[in-house]
Amino acid sequence: MREWRIDAVIVPSADPHLSEYLPERWQGRLWLSGFSGSVGTAVVTQDMAGLWTDSRYFEQAERELAGSEFSLMRLGVPNLPDHVSWLAAELPRGSVVAAADDVLSLTQRDALQRKLDAAGIALRTDLDPLDAVWDDRPGLPAAPVRAHAPAFALTTRAERLSLIRAAMRAAQATHHLVSALDDIAWITVLRGSDIPFNPVFLAHLLITPERCTLFVDVAKLDQALRYALAADDVDIADYAQIGRALAALPAEARLMLDPARMVVATAGKIPPDARLVRCANPSQALKSRKSEAELAHVRQTMQRDGVALVRFLIWLEDTLTSGSVITELDIAAKLLSLRREQAHFVGESFTTIAGYLANGALPHYRATAQSHATLERHGLLLVDSGGQYEGGTTDITRTIALGPTTEQQRRDYTLVLKGMIALSRAKFPQGTSGQQLDAIARAPIWAEGIDYGHGTGHGVGYFLNVHEGPQTIRRPSPGETGAALAVGMITSNEPGIYRPGQHGVRIENLIATVPAGDKGFGDFLAFETLTLCPIDTRPIERERLRCDEREWLNVYHDMVREQLSPLLGADERRWLAERCAAM
Amino acid sequence: MREWRIDAVIVPSADPHLSEYLPERWQGRLWLSGFSGSVGTAVVTQDMAGLWTDSRYFEQAERELAGSEFSLMRLGVPNLPDHVSWLAAELPRGSVVAAADDVLSLTQRDALQRKLDAAGIALRTDLDPLDAVWDDRPGLPAAPVRAHAPAFALTTRAERLSLIRAAMRAAQATHHLVSALDDIAWITVLRGSDIPFNPVFLAHLLITPERCTLFVDVAKLDQALRYALAADDVDIADYAQIGRALAALPAEARLMLDPARMVVATAGKIPPDARLVRCANPSQALKSRKSEAELAHVRQTMQRDGVALVRFLIWLEDTLTSGSVITELDIAAKLLSLRREQAHFVGESFTTIAGYLANGALPHYRATAQSHATLERHGLLLVDSGGQYEGGTTDITRTIALGPTTEQQRRDYTLVLKGMIALSRAKFPQGTSGQQLDAIARAPIWAEGIDYGHGTGHGVGYFLNVHEGPQTIRRPSPGETGAALAVGMITSNEPGIYRPGQHGVRIENLIATVPAGDKGFGDFLAFETLTLCPIDTRPIERERLRCDEREWLNVYHDMVREQLSPLLGADERRWLAERCAAM
Repeated sequence: MREWRIDAVIVPSADPHLSEYLPERWQGRLWLSGFSGSVGTAVVTQDMAGLWTDSRYFEQAERELAGSEFSLMRLGVPNLPDHVSWLAAELPRGSVVAAADDVLSLTQRDALQRKLDAAGIALRTDLDPLDAVWDDRPGLPAAPVRAHAPAFALTTRAERLSLIRAAMRAAQATHHLVSALDDIAWITVLRGSDIPFNPVFLAHLLITPERCTLFVDVAKLDQALRYALAADDVDIADYAQIGRALAALPAEARLMLDPARMVVATAGKIPPDARLVRCANPSQALKSRKSEAELAHVRQTMQRDGVALVRFLIWLEDTLTSGSVITELDIAAKLLSLRREQAHFVGESFTTIAGYLANGALPHYRATAQSHATLERHGLLLVDSGGQYEGGTTDITRTIALGPTTEQQRRDYTLVLKGMIALSRAKFPQGTSGQQLDAIARAPIWAEGIDYGHGTGHGVGYFLNVHEGPQTIRRPSPGETGAALAVGMITSNEPGIYRPGQHGVRIENLIATVPAGDKGFGDFLAFETLTLCPIDTRPIERERLRCDEREWLNVYHDMVREQLSPLLGADERRWLAERCAAM
Repeated sequence: MREWRIDAVIVPSADPHLSEYLPERWQGRLWLSGFSGSVGTAVVTQDMAGLWTDSRYFEQAERELAGSEFSLMRLGVPNLPDHVSWLAAELPRGSVVAAADDVLSLTQRDALQRKLDAAGIALRTDLDPLDAVWDDRPGLPAAPVRAHAPAFALTTRAERLSLIRAAMRAAQATHHLVSALDDIAWITVLRGSDIPFNPVFLAHLLITPERCTLFVDVAKLDQALRYALAADDVDIADYAQIGRALAALPAEARLMLDPARMVVATAGKIPPDARLVRCANPSQALKSRKSEAELAHVRQTMQRDGVALVRFLIWLEDTLTSGSVITELDIAAKLLSLRREQAHFVGESFTTIAGYLANGALPHYRATAQSHATLERHGLLLVDSGGQYEGGTTDITRTIALGPTTEQQRRDYTLVLKGMIALSRAKFPQGTSGQQLDAIARAPIWAEGIDYGHGTGHGVGYFLNVHEGPQTIRRPSPGETGAALAVGMITSNEPGIYRPGQHGVRIENLIATVPAGDKGFGDFLAFETLTLCPIDTRPIERERLRCDEREWLNVYHDMVREQLSPLLGADERRWLAERCAAM
């Protein structure tokens, strides 16, 4: 930094595609700081090293940063600055801040530039100080790419390209550049495994009204796939050629791109006189609205996932009863092995979170060989896991009573259940955003003076990313216009309560947005619960549940029993009937 | 327009202070179009005249525009453009649009300019085409200005100025220009009656660290007031001198102003090289947080207002029972006469809305001599009214059963009550905005596929405007970062259901934000209901109210009876006890 006359370096969690899960090559923030959470930004100056993350990760970050030179900087705590405000306040005017251009979106760069400008600080994006010191930095991933089987994909590459091209015409764009990996996987009807959990592959896609070029490591595609792509007028070029292709754009090009999903390095190759059409990638909205045929596959996938989960719950109960030792680590392994038995299972959709008692209070806890708890026959175990299937992506959390529970555990459990039920039952006018509905899940929890530090829900892909836009269910943030919930969207519903050092509760189902008719006040929407797995009724404080809430739970359990029983053995069916008994 | 080569004229509802209620001089949109609603924008081109307003006013506007050349342009209806988008789409490139600079805020001008620029249309703000054709345009109002009595004002002008100056220092501003009339009234502890309902007076205020100049028609101030202002280092200058004073600002001035509360004409007088500190007027937040002493006055004011309302309800019942004829017009007159009997009453806080049956379905209905209904002994009457008292501003809606009601009327009534109760009981973390809470009031109404087209709540002043910022309780709109609800804020809670041609239901209380403790998850807030008046229990569908909702209503009615009984006569007390009986 001294050599390059840089006063501060920002190392975000990002890659050249602004992915959430990162190829190892771009896990620089982990390499530098040791903090392994999914969200965090490292900042290094001559006399300070800070790691900014949000409340979900405070406890984990404290643990992982302990003994390092990194200070934990808490995000979202009133009066504590984010890393940009901190830099603006701490660095003298005339300072220089560096952030690598291949991990910074255009939107982020503009915001950063504006705030640093106001403080008289210069921003350089043409240096990558991390790369200079990271000797054994991993190379690019090279996993094979394959087609999403037509039986599950349901629409063809040609159909999807024609929808994108219609959006291009509407916006008068002659070219469309896509760098978001899930958008590319959806448009091309291809899947990969370059990144953990997200079935995507490193690529860029450049679309014109007639042709389309996929920039990808050609070695990842077999002969058959190359022919298939050629038949759909999709040309193949090497991943590294995107810059050259952009530089060669014709002078009259009108290039559509999403400034929030495009890094500075890629956009920097576009000729400066090209006209840009800045908007969200049309594929984002298109892929978020699952068709009725896709939802039919998801419902089948939920049955398969539900069978694995029921077998897991029975195993957990039997093993603990038998006196065998189970640790948090065993849970992820068991769940994976049971899901693997299911048809069309591909892999986990994210790292399983299994947190017993105090570990459950870390919303994104991950047990490790060095640090994990052994389960005992009391208290609450929180298990958040999910699977990638050819016919859908699952994400489910259950909090399970391993034996006697405390009054506070039961109270927290019941409040979270009330919040989850309130959102499940919500009806709302077309045009309503998840930002408007967030408080419906929180109200029963707020009523007791309790809150949780994470969003209530995120969009979920169809055999794609477990976190997918555009919709979310969370509190509104400045400048963030929440997307309206639309028919076919799949969203998680996962309120929680976390008591540091004691226990955590989270209950999560996936819900699909469905039509709910028009009674003279316009079209209304509602949610259909997709996830099929009993919700533990043992830690419920019965007197705290209202009749209508109990009724919802009974109807849900009836559905779970009906849907899963035919797929289970006799003993399993008996267990399920008991767990789904009406309250 | 042809002479000046203008292709379109925009006539908004505004004055040089961006007031909601307008002096007659600036009621140009009403003069031009005949539409008398509080929100609306007229646009005139060579071959079209349009009036844009929102769903609250659709029915009223249809009626008032009938037979004129103005077309009603519905705002907020999907796929229908607002007036700016309409102009951008309809006018050819190279067109010129005029909007007078004394009724356009800086924020509005910037947004307008941006959108017209994009369509190749020029904006001129230096012309006032309306003024050129409005022959008998009224002059400026000249009502006297007086002090807000110290017993009610509670803090002094010097104290308020010192708070404003602290905010100026924090923002490194050397000058602060205020044009918002309620902010000026609050800072100067003065009140006027230049405008209907809002106890304010036309003025500008220029504050420096040492002195302060009030630009006002000097004839409005008596000798004593002039001395009192001089004693607080407040200089007086003529209203029209603001431009000259701004033009004379020193070169090193750093002028704080609120671009959303300042018109182009006023700002245009500022020397172009002056540095601007753009922010919300600090007085906005300061005056929104009522002190405990102010709230004590408001509680007393609510008792007085409650007595007037109880007497009104008894009169209504007795008169109808006796067979006398009552029209909607009689209601406003009776309410005003009963409020006038109360100590410290100054005037109405807005035009009383009294809508019987179908007229109640117009959320901002106003009965006129030409068009009003006669009450009958069945169905629902909606009455929304309020008073200005030295010790607070009131705003209350009750929907009253005049006799037998239909099942649908009772169902709608009960749903609205459920929404009102849900919001009244809400608890929420510090930092929560009204935008987040809006769905809590709507959820019980949405559950039946019903919605209402207005916000759920607005801030209310302390013997000031009945609509006051910064907080609102409504659905989030793009770019609008909802203000957090803070201790001491007074907000309305007024969900509704409107069935055009049939009936309307709205139930409204004012609620104060109060602390609700910290149980380990940060500070929580809750609402204290301030309004004291029975809620008609006769149209309630009892089986639709939950126990906890009935419990809230019983506790509320106990409070109403306890607070009002000592101020009522024996017969009135008996009536009140009956209406406040536990369900």
